Amino acid sequence: MPHFVVIGQLAIASADFLLQDLPSSSGRLDVLLRCVRAALLVSHGVRRDTRIDLCLNGGPRAPRIVRIDGSAARFLRPDERSLAVLLGKVLAAPVAGSDFVEVRPGVCVAEGGLLRLLDELRGVPAYVLQEGARDLRGVEVLAAEGLFFLGDHLGFTPEAERALAAFGAVPVSVGPLSLHAEDVISVVNNELDRRGATTLSS
Amino acid sequence: MPHFVVIGQLAIASADFLLQDLPSSSGRLDVLLRCVRAALLVSHGVRRDTRIDLCLNGGPRAPRIVRIDGSAARFLRPDERSLAVLLGKVLAAPVAGSDFVEVRPGVCVAEGGLLRLLDELRGVPAYVLQEGARDLRGVEVLAAEGLFFLGDHLGFTPEAERALAAFGAVPVSVGPLSLHAEDVISVVNNELDRRGATTLSS
Repeated sequence: MPHFVVIGQLAIASADFLLQDLPSSSGRLDVLLRCVRAALLVSHGVRRDTRIDLCLNGGPRAPRIVRIDGSAARFLRPDERSLAVLLGKVLAAPVAGSDFVEVRPGVCVAEGGLLRLLDELRGVPAYVLQEGARDLRGVEVLAAEGLFFLGDHLGFTPEAERALAAFGAVPVSVGPLSLHAEDVISVVNNELDRRGATTLSS
Repeated sequence: MPHFVVIGQLAIASADFLLQDLPSSSGRLDVLLRCVRAALLVSHGVRRDTRIDLCLNGGPRAPRIVRIDGSAARFLRPDERSLAVLLGKVLAAPVAGSDFVEVRPGVCVAEGGLLRLLDELRGVPAYVLQEGARDLRGVEVLAAEGLFFLGDHLGFTPEAERALAAFGAVPVSVGPLSLHAEDVISVVNNELDRRGATTLSS
């Protein structure tokens, strides 16, 4: 399965955000919510073979990771507000610890940040989406079960860049412009679709 | 300039929708709002050479068209709620008639539907995004200043399909899966970017 990981530098790790002012009140959690739609939803269906992790590094509860598995997720709606409501419920659940706990069908949360995630995923083929890197289309063998790391609107911190390089994540790009993370996911998914890598179920 | 046209079969042509329940109260205007972001916004910038028309065919004020020009638009924000607030203001403005009236910088509204639009745009190279059609990547010459017609979550009506065929719009697709309209726009923009067709300005 393709497994996207989006790192929110300031995205809030608790439910203390306002639905009526999501961008300002949540450390731009809206960016990450839109990535969830792009990663998991297609027309009238869910990408059952796809997973996305949101690394939330903002607020006093940080760092935490929310994981959404297309294979088990239910009732996912594409609009930002519905996804924000879902995330709020997950982040407000009385769970703790560094193991993933399923709070809603297919939606889990765990304490920890990128290093905890990399430790769990050691050995998985990985790519990091970076401007100016080698074009994804030119990568001959693209591991469909690979990890795809993306930054948010602030990009990656130097620490994250170093950790991803040490992990062996291969830098790739999706074209000449710097796009929103969700558009990058759409283009990566499209490239994998064209290579026959994904499975769909409504 | 690439010029996207998204046809909302039921999308409301007035401001009579609820921000806290956009999908249900607006005839899925949320689908079209997400297309605006995908068409016009990149990381920290606007696609100044791109335009999008939203054909709104729902509610008593329909049909109306909202046009957003990247060349003139200001204060465009990527989150769905901000875009809904903007559309609400535009749709509530006391303007009428079949000529486009600029209500906010770069954002115009006019009465009329697809046929009015096709009449205005006669002679412009046009593509219609359809599942199973010829792959966009294989289209040798892709008019960067072309029209790209997309349906919403309901697709095209038979009337719209006939009108687009009569207009000479060339059916193209973006891969093996049926994607959300906004993802289709992301992929089309990416293909045009790669062909060196677009201009960006922050």
